[in-house]
Amino acid sequence: MDSTARTVNVGLIGLGTVGGGVARLIERHRDEYLKAYGIDLRLKKASALEPGRAAELGIAPENFTTDWHDVVADPDIDIVIELIGGDHPATEIFEAALTSGKHMVSANKALLGRHVERLAKLAAEHGVQIRCEASAGGGIPIVNALEHALVGNEILTVAGILNGTTNYILTRMASEGLDFAEVLADAQRLGYAEADPTADVDGFDAASKVAILSSIAFHTRVTTDDVFQEGIRNVSAADIAQAKSLGYVVKLLGIARNTADGVDVRVHPTMIPADHMLASVSGAMNAVYVVGDAVGETMFYGAGAGSFPTASAVVGDVLALADAISHNDKVQAEIEPYQRVLPLRPIDELETRYYVRLLVKDEVGTLAPVVDAFAAHGISISQINQLQDGDGSRCSVVFLTHTARERDMAAARAALEALDAVESVASVIRIEDVASWADGAEKND
Amino acid sequence: MDSTARTVNVGLIGLGTVGGGVARLIERHRDEYLKAYGIDLRLKKASALEPGRAAELGIAPENFTTDWHDVVADPDIDIVIELIGGDHPATEIFEAALTSGKHMVSANKALLGRHVERLAKLAAEHGVQIRCEASAGGGIPIVNALEHALVGNEILTVAGILNGTTNYILTRMASEGLDFAEVLADAQRLGYAEADPTADVDGFDAASKVAILSSIAFHTRVTTDDVFQEGIRNVSAADIAQAKSLGYVVKLLGIARNTADGVDVRVHPTMIPADHMLASVSGAMNAVYVVGDAVGETMFYGAGAGSFPTASAVVGDVLALADAISHNDKVQAEIEPYQRVLPLRPIDELETRYYVRLLVKDEVGTLAPVVDAFAAHGISISQINQLQDGDGSRCSVVFLTHTARERDMAAARAALEALDAVESVASVIRIEDVASWADGAEKND
Repeated sequence: MDSTARTVNVGLIGLGTVGGGVARLIERHRDEYLKAYGIDLRLKKASALEPGRAAELGIAPENFTTDWHDVVADPDIDIVIELIGGDHPATEIFEAALTSGKHMVSANKALLGRHVERLAKLAAEHGVQIRCEASAGGGIPIVNALEHALVGNEILTVAGILNGTTNYILTRMASEGLDFAEVLADAQRLGYAEADPTADVDGFDAASKVAILSSIAFHTRVTTDDVFQEGIRNVSAADIAQAKSLGYVVKLLGIARNTADGVDVRVHPTMIPADHMLASVSGAMNAVYVVGDAVGETMFYGAGAGSFPTASAVVGDVLALADAISHNDKVQAEIEPYQRVLPLRPIDELETRYYVRLLVKDEVGTLAPVVDAFAAHGISISQINQLQDGDGSRCSVVFLTHTARERDMAAARAALEALDAVESVASVIRIEDVASWADGAEKND
Repeated sequence: MDSTARTVNVGLIGLGTVGGGVARLIERHRDEYLKAYGIDLRLKKASALEPGRAAELGIAPENFTTDWHDVVADPDIDIVIELIGGDHPATEIFEAALTSGKHMVSANKALLGRHVERLAKLAAEHGVQIRCEASAGGGIPIVNALEHALVGNEILTVAGILNGTTNYILTRMASEGLDFAEVLADAQRLGYAEADPTADVDGFDAASKVAILSSIAFHTRVTTDDVFQEGIRNVSAADIAQAKSLGYVVKLLGIARNTADGVDVRVHPTMIPADHMLASVSGAMNAVYVVGDAVGETMFYGAGAGSFPTASAVVGDVLALADAISHNDKVQAEIEPYQRVLPLRPIDELETRYYVRLLVKDEVGTLAPVVDAFAAHGISISQINQLQDGDGSRCSVVFLTHTARERDMAAARAALEALDAVESVASVIRIEDVASWADGAEKND
């Protein structure tokens, strides 16, 4: 908006899917950023291991290097964008850039999910910011909402579909009645899942994101290792079909709640009512449900991954910094310096309802010891359905429990597995009480 | 985050539903704002016409006045919050506050929808900001997303359920099969609709909001008077039931698209596919769908009205200003000073598909002149359903058209109304091509 535009020089480390999107987006919209915001955003130096990427992306040879040190060492660069992911050399890049007074923009959820506190302190010491909109929810502007628009609230709950690969798999399992392994193989063939799908399907990716989001939302420190993690490998087509007939859908949710007993933070397959907004989120899309004490229930929906959506989040962060830099504002450290550390509530203390599917021997008298085993651990049953999937010798029986404690459920599970009548505990899926997400919110009137 | 907190004094004009929520929210969270952000937010002076409100809200007598001039004249006040709505004295409050160098936070969509350009210029002249998160979408942080997190994008489409009253009415019409008048009466009884429901049900409220959002999204000037406006009075239970059987739901949408032919901006009942995310938004909730060229499709969901949700948006704006003030940053004028004015595309130029329900005489040969009338105006029909609602002498027939131009549809409608066979054109509802909202977006890969 100034009549005199100011140049802001940006360094970009990593020119893969997201880095390439960032380079393309800045190039494409440079004139518009200049006209609308008075900011002349220049990609002063970009680095990648493969020299060929520069030409592919139209980056001039003098602005390209294969050595990231050249980017961080450039005295003209105000903002360093790190998009290589992983721990090393990303850690070294953060340290070098922050200590030389450069702001950092990053999508590195694995690194930030574990080490953001240390890095944020380093940033604060050097009077610079770390911005990480792209690290959780891809293009969805959820970090910005938590840090800015919703700061008037005490945030009660953050719960989201934070991983596109698993949501894609669960959506196809539900619509086509296929089992996990089949859909995974197809997803890998189509490029929706990695050759090594562990980080996605076992919940690590979602755990990193919920750690970052809950740290910001609750002004505390939650690391990826604090997050209870359970993936979707054990969810079967039978479970999804049963869920549907009971009025639920199965989603892999990252859930973080700020409860009186501590921060409850976990990633696991979850049954939620079919008419909940999160239940409508299909395919590779992501969505984050946020409940604040004043704003009540909100949801943010969009692409959680991909070249341009993630680039949108990165460039949003870059422009916010560039705007402040171009006005000579003192840019404050953005991520909370963790002035408080809230206790974590262990997963054992979770109280929820459960869906339990047992493979049992198909004979008279099977049910009695099973029901006894639940009762012996203080778990009461609200519904029992025998499925028509038997082969004459065994069949599935589904139990829905009333609210029970996780540690009791774990003990009951062990007891069930030891019964002669039970071949296996095929699946245990938590049924989330979504209404409780708004516990503590003001009444909207 | 500073060790030394700075006091920021706020003046509040209007202590109704939203103003009361703001006073309560600031009071409730003052300690938290101090601890988390180093900002000591003080409600230095509040005004309302009814002196009794001060005591009800726990505002000390010395901080209360019945004359808004006292608030604006207080030299200690940095930020004035205007929550009285309407044109006067809201206009005078804006002018007095801005010219005396105070920032303004407002939820006044009627005023901002028409006069934001002039007021934004006045703000820019005096180096202060107008912030209006609460003016569109209540608590949903959509203005912040458009102004900050998504600024890396060219925004292609903003389309939303921007009025809770009409969404509540349409949701109940759909779930209970009731007609408009019945549900409206009940909504008025329950407090979901005003005694004079015109601003809501005739689309004016949504038009103001889509004017504000499209101005921000497209960096141009759209006023409420530029928005084509059609309310929900003519939508019947029969139309909603038909829509459902065709795979659609009927929503009152505010739609703004930045097309090659100009800005297309309108509010009207709209049929959208039942599996679209906006179709899941029920009751009094609001949601805004935003498509950016990089981020692709996003949606923001939450309470569009109410005391605390709207207060959340107001306080978010206040804290953003307070943060800048407390760091002595030069706070820039926030709303675009309209450096460009994009042409508007007249509603006549709209091309869309239509749902048309005719009341016709129930006799042989009725259909031929009707089909001829459509054809004479270049409109081709994709489907015809005769409904089972006849009384022997007349019945409804529903026509779905292929893509047609609004002006041709208007001419066809006049021709249909003139036919002997046609008793009335009972309803014409536009079927939105939601896929086209992403025209021009990058492919997500």
